Amino acid sequence: MKIFVIHGPNLNLLGTREISIYGTFTLQEVNKALTELAEKEKVEITIFQSNYEGEIIDIIQKAEQEANAIVINPGAYTHYSIAIRDAIAGVGLPTVEVHLSNIYAREGFRHNSVIAPVAIGQISGFGIDSYLLGLRAVIEIAKRKGDSNERSEVE
Amino acid sequence: MKIFVIHGPNLNLLGTREISIYGTFTLQEVNKALTELAEKEKVEITIFQSNYEGEIIDIIQKAEQEANAIVINPGAYTHYSIAIRDAIAGVGLPTVEVHLSNIYAREGFRHNSVIAPVAIGQISGFGIDSYLLGLRAVIEIAKRKGDSNERSEVE
Amino acid sequence: MKIFVIHGPNLNLLGTREISIYGTFTLQEVNKALTELAEKEKVEITIFQSNYEGEIIDIIQKAEQEANAIVINPGAYTHYSIAIRDAIAGVGLPTVEVHLSNIYAREGFRHNSVIAPVAIGQISGFGIDSYLLGLRAVIEIAKRKGDSNERSEVE
Amino acid sequence: MKIFVIHGPNLNLLGTREISIYGTFTLQEVNKALTELAEKEKVEITIFQSNYEGEIIDIIQKAEQEANAIVINPGAYTHYSIAIRDAIAGVGLPTVEVHLSNIYAREGFRHNSVIAPVAIGQISGFGIDSYLLGLRAVIEIAKRKGDSNERSEVE
Amino acid sequence: MKIFVIHGPNLNLLGTREISIYGTFTLQEVNKALTELAEKEKVEITIFQSNYEGEIIDIIQKAEQEANAIVINPGAYTHYSIAIRDAIAGVGLPTVEVHLSNIYAREGFRHNSVIAPVAIGQISGFGIDSYLLGLRAVIEIAKRKGDSNERSEVE
Amino acid sequence: MKIFVIHGPNLNLLGTREISIYGTFTLQEVNKALTELAEKEKVEITIFQSNYEGEIIDIIQKAEQEANAIVINPGAYTHYSIAIRDAIAGVGLPTVEVHLSNIYAREGFRHNSVIAPVAIGQISGFGIDSYLLGLRAVIEIAKRKGDSNERSEVE
Amino acid sequence: MKIFVIHGPNLNLLGTREISIYGTFTLQEVNKALTELAEKEKVEITIFQSNYEGEIIDIIQKAEQEANAIVINPGAYTHYSIAIRDAIAGVGLPTVEVHLSNIYAREGFRHNSVIAPVAIGQISGFGIDSYLLGLRAVIEIAKRKGDSNERSEVE
Amino acid sequence: MKIFVIHGPNLNLLGTREISIYGTFTLQEVNKALTELAEKEKVEITIFQSNYEGEIIDIIQKAEQEANAIVINPGAYTHYSIAIRDAIAGVGLPTVEVHLSNIYAREGFRHNSVIAPVAIGQISGFGIDSYLLGLRAVIEIAKRKGDSNERSEVE
Amino acid sequence: MKIFVIHGPNLNLLGTREISIYGTFTLQEVNKALTELAEKEKVEITIFQSNYEGEIIDIIQKAEQEANAIVINPGAYTHYSIAIRDAIAGVGLPTVEVHLSNIYAREGFRHNSVIAPVAIGQISGFGIDSYLLGLRAVIEIAKRKGDSNERSEVE
Amino acid sequence: MKIFVIHGPNLNLLGTREISIYGTFTLQEVNKALTELAEKEKVEITIFQSNYEGEIIDIIQKAEQEANAIVINPGAYTHYSIAIRDAIAGVGLPTVEVHLSNIYAREGFRHNSVIAPVAIGQISGFGIDSYLLGLRAVIEIAKRKGDSNERSEVE
Amino acid sequence: MKIFVIHGPNLNLLGTREISIYGTFTLQEVNKALTELAEKEKVEITIFQSNYEGEIIDIIQKAEQEANAIVINPGAYTHYSIAIRDAIAGVGLPTVEVHLSNIYAREGFRHNSVIAPVAIGQISGFGIDSYLLGLRAVIEIAKRKGDSNERSEVE
Amino acid sequence: MKIFVIHGPNLNLLGTREISIYGTFTLQEVNKALTELAEKEKVEITIFQSNYEGEIIDIIQKAEQEANAIVINPGAYTHYSIAIRDAIAGVGLPTVEVHLSNIYAREGFRHNSVIAPVAIGQISGFGIDSYLLGLRAVIEIAKRKGDSNERSEVE
Repeated sequence: MKIFVIHGPNLNLLGTREISIYGTFTLQEVNKALTELAEKEKVEITIFQSNYEGEIIDIIQKAEQEANAIVINPGAYTHYSIAIRDAIAGVGLPTVEVHLSNIYAREGFRHNSVIAPVAIGQISGFGIDSYLLGLRAVIEIAKRKGDSNERSEVE
Repeated sequence: MKIFVIHGPNLNLLGTREISIYGTFTLQEVNKALTELAEKEKVEITIFQSNYEGEIIDIIQKAEQEANAIVINPGAYTHYSIAIRDAIAGVGLPTVEVHLSNIYAREGFRHNSVIAPVAIGQISGFGIDSYLLGLRAVIEIAKRKGDSNERSEVE
Repeated sequence: MKIFVIHGPNLNLLGTREISIYGTFTLQEVNKALTELAEKEKVEITIFQSNYEGEIIDIIQKAEQEANAIVINPGAYTHYSIAIRDAIAGVGLPTVEVHLSNIYAREGFRHNSVIAPVAIGQISGFGIDSYLLGLRAVIEIAKRKGDSNERSEVE
Repeated sequence: MKIFVIHGPNLNLLGTREISIYGTFTLQEVNKALTELAEKEKVEITIFQSNYEGEIIDIIQKAEQEANAIVINPGAYTHYSIAIRDAIAGVGLPTVEVHLSNIYAREGFRHNSVIAPVAIGQISGFGIDSYLLGLRAVIEIAKRKGDSNERSEVE
Repeated sequence: MKIFVIHGPNLNLLGTREISIYGTFTLQEVNKALTELAEKEKVEITIFQSNYEGEIIDIIQKAEQEANAIVINPGAYTHYSIAIRDAIAGVGLPTVEVHLSNIYAREGFRHNSVIAPVAIGQISGFGIDSYLLGLRAVIEIAKRKGDSNERSEVE
Repeated sequence: MKIFVIHGPNLNLLGTREISIYGTFTLQEVNKALTELAEKEKVEITIFQSNYEGEIIDIIQKAEQEANAIVINPGAYTHYSIAIRDAIAGVGLPTVEVHLSNIYAREGFRHNSVIAPVAIGQISGFGIDSYLLGLRAVIEIAKRKGDSNERSEVE
Repeated sequence: MKIFVIHGPNLNLLGTREISIYGTFTLQEVNKALTELAEKEKVEITIFQSNYEGEIIDIIQKAEQEANAIVINPGAYTHYSIAIRDAIAGVGLPTVEVHLSNIYAREGFRHNSVIAPVAIGQISGFGIDSYLLGLRAVIEIAKRKGDSNERSEVE
Repeated sequence: MKIFVIHGPNLNLLGTREISIYGTFTLQEVNKALTELAEKEKVEITIFQSNYEGEIIDIIQKAEQEANAIVINPGAYTHYSIAIRDAIAGVGLPTVEVHLSNIYAREGFRHNSVIAPVAIGQISGFGIDSYLLGLRAVIEIAKRKGDSNERSEVE
Repeated sequence: MKIFVIHGPNLNLLGTREISIYGTFTLQEVNKALTELAEKEKVEITIFQSNYEGEIIDIIQKAEQEANAIVINPGAYTHYSIAIRDAIAGVGLPTVEVHLSNIYAREGFRHNSVIAPVAIGQISGFGIDSYLLGLRAVIEIAKRKGDSNERSEVE
Repeated sequence: MKIFVIHGPNLNLLGTREISIYGTFTLQEVNKALTELAEKEKVEITIFQSNYEGEIIDIIQKAEQEANAIVINPGAYTHYSIAIRDAIAGVGLPTVEVHLSNIYAREGFRHNSVIAPVAIGQISGFGIDSYLLGLRAVIEIAKRKGDSNERSEVE
Repeated sequence: MKIFVIHGPNLNLLGTREISIYGTFTLQEVNKALTELAEKEKVEITIFQSNYEGEIIDIIQKAEQEANAIVINPGAYTHYSIAIRDAIAGVGLPTVEVHLSNIYAREGFRHNSVIAPVAIGQISGFGIDSYLLGLRAVIEIAKRKGDSNERSEVE
Repeated sequence: MKIFVIHGPNLNLLGTREISIYGTFTLQEVNKALTELAEKEKVEITIFQSNYEGEIIDIIQKAEQEANAIVINPGAYTHYSIAIRDAIAGVGLPTVEVHLSNIYAREGFRHNSVIAPVAIGQISGFGIDSYLLGLRAVIEIAKRKGDSNERSEVE
């Protein structure tokens, strides 16, 4: 099983700026934790970061060929990128949306996610753990999907 | 460490009705899975279900005395119970909001949670796994809180 | 055939207050008229009144076991109780929503019913007759449902 | 006692199209059921159907001279014809608004009725029975009006 | 000089109904007052009343051939008939919109006129005098238009 | 009979600026035309112009002692001065609101008048004639009020 | 194959008024171009124009018996006639909505079409060509419908 | 004279949590201050606290039999409990709404009170003093009501 | 201790007009009652009334030099004068907003106060008593402020 | 004559995913059909597809130098890319907006096109035919533009 | 060249209050800096401050006679004074709107300026420098206007 | 001191298109003027232009390492790019937002800037001078930041 993990715009700044919102850990530390969990769970992960909406769409489309599921933190694109939404809906892979911060406790314009309606589910507010919980969730879903059709009942 | 798990209104109907939305598992099965994970993680959990907004507030207030953290699926109260929100904000315990279904892929009036801004984080869309991921998340948070102050950085 | 009739909050005040809106008849008189019609139509009815949202949900859930249909005047909960709505949708019994007054001729916030989309139909504005027409309607629906599947065509 | 029953636009298509919404019965069958009930209740009814907003207004104005009450299904005009509303308010006859389908369970733009505030009451969602219940209701109101002033208490 | 005076839907009910809003005078009395003023001002007027949106459009289009100006009380169509608006804009004659009642002191949905932006001006609230002032105004405008181009400055 | 005519803010600029909207005539010319009409109609008028919201309120309050009616062009205050509205409602004199330009054919924020609901009526779009028609209208109303109570029927 | 072409209100004014918006060609020229294209494509067309909402509904209902498809320019009714929308949905014929002007580059209230959701598609902004392209489109759709079911995939 | 003082949801948490908003005094201290003022003013008070919307309605209904007036802090129910509003309107006792904090200086969703339109008046922002001022106000009103009808003038 | 009491626009009309809303007492009577209470409480008060937004700002700025607190009834300026709001926020004195009538039971545009967020608290609906309760409240606050810093906890 | 055809984001997925919305044909088949029509019409076309908003802008800017007109399906960027809109407005070439599906029959957020106001016209809902009709339309416009200025009348 | 600098309401409080928003400098210091820059740039400036909307209008109207351009900080009037907007549009002088603070980083109601659409441009957020940059900008514009017509191209 | 100047999408079209809005000068001329001012002020500037949202984010992130401040004209991204906003907030450099045209005098959708709340200030409407004033402003801010902490008072 292979999973794509996609970090959206500005997540490469993690740990150096706005630490009151995002914490002091860096993107490297997030990726290390993800890799360790993947190894433990015996799944393969590939990690991407891009500030380009178009490149994120390219990656999602590539996932269709190469991966079983997607974990994505769309960053600011969460709130307006219908193009990323369409890419996720288009490739049809199980996709989990994650956010480091609790987007519902921040500015009003961050309360709406155009991605959420096409994701399996959303996890927000747990810092690094948002990614780890999201990876666990998507592994579980992809496994069940491999085994049987029983996942459809919980969507 | 003790955690309160609170099921909101109509969750006692799980598994018998609207299975296309909520799945075929029953509340008993959810509770069994939660109990097993709690045992594995060596934490104590107490589980409640109520259709009464007032009773849910009572339970949250009781948690202040008896528990370290809360996992709550507020059901329909998610969307309008400012009273439950105030209870959560009032007792100040780490609280994780969970939903079986992806509330952002349903009717418009389910897209807004008045609870989310006072929770640590939110997990929605993963069926039973929403609860299990939520329990894992809150255990992690409560642990860190016990150890040190480092959790504050990820809120 | 058994039908639950549920009176929502403040309907126990009928006949003593705000008679310009609700008329001079009391809840006892409404219930007497309902009982007489039920006897005439040879159906059994059980009547409830509660000011508690949670208790109304409990009653609706009990109806699933004990009744064939529901007539409900949700009172003020009409306008915001998504929890009652979910209970009605959850138990799946034919449900008719009734109102004594014409809610569309009153304050703006009374024009919206969150219950209506999950009811079979709605009757408002006819005083006691709203209940009697509602009882007739639900008997007719429950009868057809017993006989055949032909009701589905009119929903 | 004489009652006008008015069918609005496209109701002449009943039974041939969109049967998942409106059912398989035809307008002729609705009219037959209405006529039978009228005979049983010993009232006279005259039935109209028109696709023209202006013609419906003409009929309502004619009702002022010739009828004691109106049962109207304004069809799509329900949602925007202030002119029909003004006609009903202008002639001042007791008027009951009926709908075959539950308009509150359909598209958002069908949730609002500009007619409802000037009608005595509204009945929606019961297929043919919406008309029959509406006829019963308006007969009852017109009777009471003939007898005494006691109807005013239920408005 | 010839002027078309157009009464919209339900204005034929004047004087018999809703006299608290529209007064006790009849449409005949309005027309008589208009005719007298026209004679005094030595202009020719033709008066129409219709409940049909389509017929009002026909009349306006006919005005293009036969008249110099229009005085119109569009009744309820004031608030939604973009088709009448387009007719007025299409024929390009000076048009004055009049209302018996002060539409801004009534229900919220009467505060908006889709006609007003294509009329020269609007007069509302003066009962019969709204028509008489409107006729005076349009005569003045039509005269100036005949004489010179100086009217354009006040639009 | 005495009438106050009140010109609101910036009307003293008339004739020198924005002539495509307001025309080339000056405020002096407006006042001259008003005075001539007043003389012809044998009523006394007093004319005011102020850029101060407070001063306009003072004048309206003074009108209560000294005048029988008011003609007011509130200028930009039309759209937000609830204080001027309250003054008009407070003194209770028949008041006619006039506008040189058709405010409904201009920017969206000019479509709403907070004054209109407390005025007898509104005249807009006729340049100088708006004032003259307004003066005629208010004289007529004040006369009838002097004679009898029959004006109340047309409000 | 037979196609109904329906021109809505005020389209009979084409070529004489508002030529900056609609162009200098007349409705006769539009109809001539349509007839020529129909002959070339070997389909039969019948052309209607009406200012009456009710008459347009009558024509659409007649199309159900006599035609295979509809090309309609609903004019101003585009923006509010739910009754015409219901007629189109009711008869179920492939319907193409056309507009001479680009309605999205005009006033805000012209940006919304209540017809569009029940049409196959919409063509706007190409003057006479909007009709010709619409006729081509509907012929293509009707042809495919005759041949097979493959059209359903592109809706 | 007897007065019911009703504390809504979460007010039992006073003094222990969110002290930056609500202050350090406890509900016991509020009640003590109220009791002392009542004794000084020689009125009897009964104090209630409930987290249940239904129970608050029960208490208000009981007040109709046992009390002359009500002082209520509806807590979070202020913003959505139309059921409590209807109870207050239903029993018709003079009711004063109080709030410890200035609800207009807090989150946007706290700026609207559905209770306020049926209360005599509202006092917010003065901490314990809100209750004391509210008690004084309601005593004054109840006294006048006892003496004469002069209170009606100030509503 | 010295307190400024400021009456906003049109309050000088009190007692003579709109007595169904504001009561029969005059501004002189309000001021007398205020003066008596001030004497009893041994504080000095200065009373102002102005129809000018600018003058009210001047008075508030003067209060900064001369007074310890402000009681203000901003009248109609309540709903739009951000300039008065800024003056209150700018001088930083404890300010209590009072209203004679219950502004939440009147027209929708009176439900919003732009002043409230910068006031300590608001009292509305008690007629003259609104002022007297407001004066009591502000004296209490100013006293505590003099004594210690304990008031900050209740804001 | 040379025309640029631009496919926006995710259109490279055509034929493999969401076939219930977009059909089973691939982008290659669309391009083949376009090329054939271009050859038949004797115009040159160049076809682009990009998931990058910035790249689409680059292509539009390049069109200014190299092409006579543009056919664009902006995909999801239709709904928010003001930058693409500005590029189209900036280069000033005749541009036709096309959509495979009827965007007005899909989710609400797809009903608004920020591109439409700067395009000549829009064609939506005809599958491959949307492109072909769009190409025909733009050829016609570009031809007329080459010949004379007569196109300006239909914009 | 002469320039009017106008300070709106409460700007005379600068430096003494709300220094976290507006800084510690006083209005005198702002004026001194402006005067020095004016001298350096060899232009004459006259500086005004008023809390009165009406007085600010008077000053702007006076500017028409005496000045070449205006620099204005309308303070709170920025957000609602259509009267000041009309004055600026009426006199037609080049006007630059300045703000000390970044109004877009403050409360939502400060994000809208009714003045901005009639100003040449707006400068906000730079403290004293907002005024100095504004003065520089307006000098530049007024100079060009004196020299030639080339400024029109940048509006 | 080094400053990054960033031109957003379509600004490379300057001087060739839409000159009525943006003027006849080219981007090269803007850059030349900026370079001259930078030399005069003895600061180093680096100038970028990109149509790619992602590339603009990359440049802003690079600025964190290489520059002291940013001048940015985000072009159309001003109105929706939360990703660019987050980049600016993330790097924390003093940033000034500039616009050639007065965005508040253009279409409604251009009145909102999602960038403004995270910029120091905004300058719009002065053509080339917007950039020059912006460069002056940011130099001043960066200087003060170098010298001391006194700038914080004016934010």
